[in-house]
Amino acid sequence: MTTTTRTLNQTLNRTPKLLLGPGPSNVHPDVLAAMAQPMIGHLDPAFLKILDRVQARLRTLFGTDNAMTLPLSTTGSGGMEACFGNLVEPGDAVVIGVNGVFGNRMCDVASRLGGEVTRVDADWGRILDDDAMSDAIARVRPRVVAFVHAETSTGVHQPVENISRAARDVGAFVILDCVTSLAGLPVRLDEWGVDAAYSGTQKCLSCPPGLSPATFSPRAVERAGDRSAPCTSWYLDINLLAGYFGGERVYHHTAPISAIFALDEALRLVEEEGLETRAARHRDAAEALIAGLAEFGFEPLVDAAHRLPMLTSVRLPESVKKAGEGAVRRKLLDDHEIEVGGGLGALAGEIWRIGLMGENARRENVARLLEALSKELR
Amino acid sequence: MTTTTRTLNQTLNRTPKLLLGPGPSNVHPDVLAAMAQPMIGHLDPAFLKILDRVQARLRTLFGTDNAMTLPLSTTGSGGMEACFGNLVEPGDAVVIGVNGVFGNRMCDVASRLGGEVTRVDADWGRILDDDAMSDAIARVRPRVVAFVHAETSTGVHQPVENISRAARDVGAFVILDCVTSLAGLPVRLDEWGVDAAYSGTQKCLSCPPGLSPATFSPRAVERAGDRSAPCTSWYLDINLLAGYFGGERVYHHTAPISAIFALDEALRLVEEEGLETRAARHRDAAEALIAGLAEFGFEPLVDAAHRLPMLTSVRLPESVKKAGEGAVRRKLLDDHEIEVGGGLGALAGEIWRIGLMGENARRENVARLLEALSKELR
Repeated sequence: MTTTTRTLNQTLNRTPKLLLGPGPSNVHPDVLAAMAQPMIGHLDPAFLKILDRVQARLRTLFGTDNAMTLPLSTTGSGGMEACFGNLVEPGDAVVIGVNGVFGNRMCDVASRLGGEVTRVDADWGRILDDDAMSDAIARVRPRVVAFVHAETSTGVHQPVENISRAARDVGAFVILDCVTSLAGLPVRLDEWGVDAAYSGTQKCLSCPPGLSPATFSPRAVERAGDRSAPCTSWYLDINLLAGYFGGERVYHHTAPISAIFALDEALRLVEEEGLETRAARHRDAAEALIAGLAEFGFEPLVDAAHRLPMLTSVRLPESVKKAGEGAVRRKLLDDHEIEVGGGLGALAGEIWRIGLMGENARRENVARLLEALSKELR
Repeated sequence: MTTTTRTLNQTLNRTPKLLLGPGPSNVHPDVLAAMAQPMIGHLDPAFLKILDRVQARLRTLFGTDNAMTLPLSTTGSGGMEACFGNLVEPGDAVVIGVNGVFGNRMCDVASRLGGEVTRVDADWGRILDDDAMSDAIARVRPRVVAFVHAETSTGVHQPVENISRAARDVGAFVILDCVTSLAGLPVRLDEWGVDAAYSGTQKCLSCPPGLSPATFSPRAVERAGDRSAPCTSWYLDINLLAGYFGGERVYHHTAPISAIFALDEALRLVEEEGLETRAARHRDAAEALIAGLAEFGFEPLVDAAHRLPMLTSVRLPESVKKAGEGAVRRKLLDDHEIEVGGGLGALAGEIWRIGLMGENARRENVARLLEALSKELR
């Protein structure tokens, strides 16, 4: 062992932790190995072949034929910005469904871009109301309608089709946040009539964070090319990104090569398992989790019909509140190497968010968490 | 060997190539190993300790005490956008020095943000003229002055201090592109009076691409907090980023954890070597390259006083033009596993850009390139 290697080992975190928070999830060893391959150039034909494959596999996962389907060189939050940035011009009316942190964030992102935002709020932990959304859409006749498929702050699984249809009826573009749903729930953008969607790599894809898989319908691409002023972001302008991520592969910016190696391998693992099997595995693990947690007095925040399988939010029992929920989470992390997430916003101190995402959606991980809880809470 | 591992090996590029283009450069094995460590959470105290260290080491490398020094979750081009996005408001006058692709890109980025851009052009391959810049600055009295320290499209090393002083004299903020200079040339932002700077990880840091080390002076942070309208980018707004990358470590977006592991290790290697030694190694390798290439008739584009050590641009000899410069580069890549870069814009077909960046700045790599050339050109 050289000095360098010793120092490396000393400076980094060496204990693998079980990541049952709202993301990142644990990464498959093959994905880590793929990421650590020797570097190659972003214009090297060998790399472009991998990029082709990644784009094709993302189309399958998003349920779309969109040519403009790509791993954006940013995280999921940057993907949100890319969708709004390309489709919203100053003065455009935008209707946004808000039932958690990420719907809220959409309002901020759209407003900064000059969008005239109409919020349609629902209680955190409930789905958006189809009628309230449809009414607002019919009244405002917006350019863009946006909402969240899998609200990571609450664990709500939002039905897409009714809202999407109402939006299409007035000619609006539909933006859908698929950060937490992609690769854990069926996503069928073309069937649903969604024009632009984004995800992250660190949730059900079980990849490191750093890329945002995203897709734009031909209609969205046309709109982005037909703006009265260009997208304020040079970096995220799909008219420019098309030069590299489209057929021609001309330089725009340097793609995050290692991260794309990792994504390629993660997508291969999803394909190998099959999305149906993978989705069933997520549902199975979530059921076991909810049943197990009930024994400690944790109660699901979301009603059974609209729970996300990959992210379960639970109200805290008195035992946890009394011990201090932050202190209990810290003990899980320090003494049991298990991370779970706290609540955000109004739900801080009220709920935990427990992710069983991608590689982690397995009963053995549920058992490990329940065992740790039984030591800490009994 | 499992099936999975076999498939992984088959699907990825396995031949390490020598990357002597304009970036990415080859990555040190310890950096690849660091990147492939098991995932941990972005709010895990163990990760935040690493982030603290990365931020401290970046301050040293940038030559600054700026608290707001951070690895932005985007590539170098996104770092450019972050600097302009925070400091330029619609209607602000901006003076930009342009002597290559990246100065040009600055004009596009600033214009999209509503900046009123005054370009000061110089020939590609020459430095910006101090007097021309000073005159424009005195005349326009801009809010922001921006230029490129190491112009990757031409190989020009731009002196900073005179232009920076002229900018400060009128109270302007100075933005400096350090994508290719950081960790290969001395960068002394505080001494030079630079307010905001950005870099990339895939050049002299010899890290994979995907992060943009960046820094903002207290004065720049104050300005960003005092805008009449918020930064159009939620993702890059330093007022929000300060919540996570400042002291409090509250969630903004999920940081690219693995990439930060890699950057931490790369910065440790720079520290271990010492920046002076590293800079001298770059100069030494570049000298050997220029001497060796002269034998084939390649002539430096840039005069000796203003050549970048880490990126050498050379005019092509007739032998290469006759064989087709693209075809020769393709042969170097396919038959010798060596990547070199072509020219951009007006210099396409006229020059090659040969990078000896970070780990690659060694005479043995120069020798390998020269040997390959002697096989192809003689």
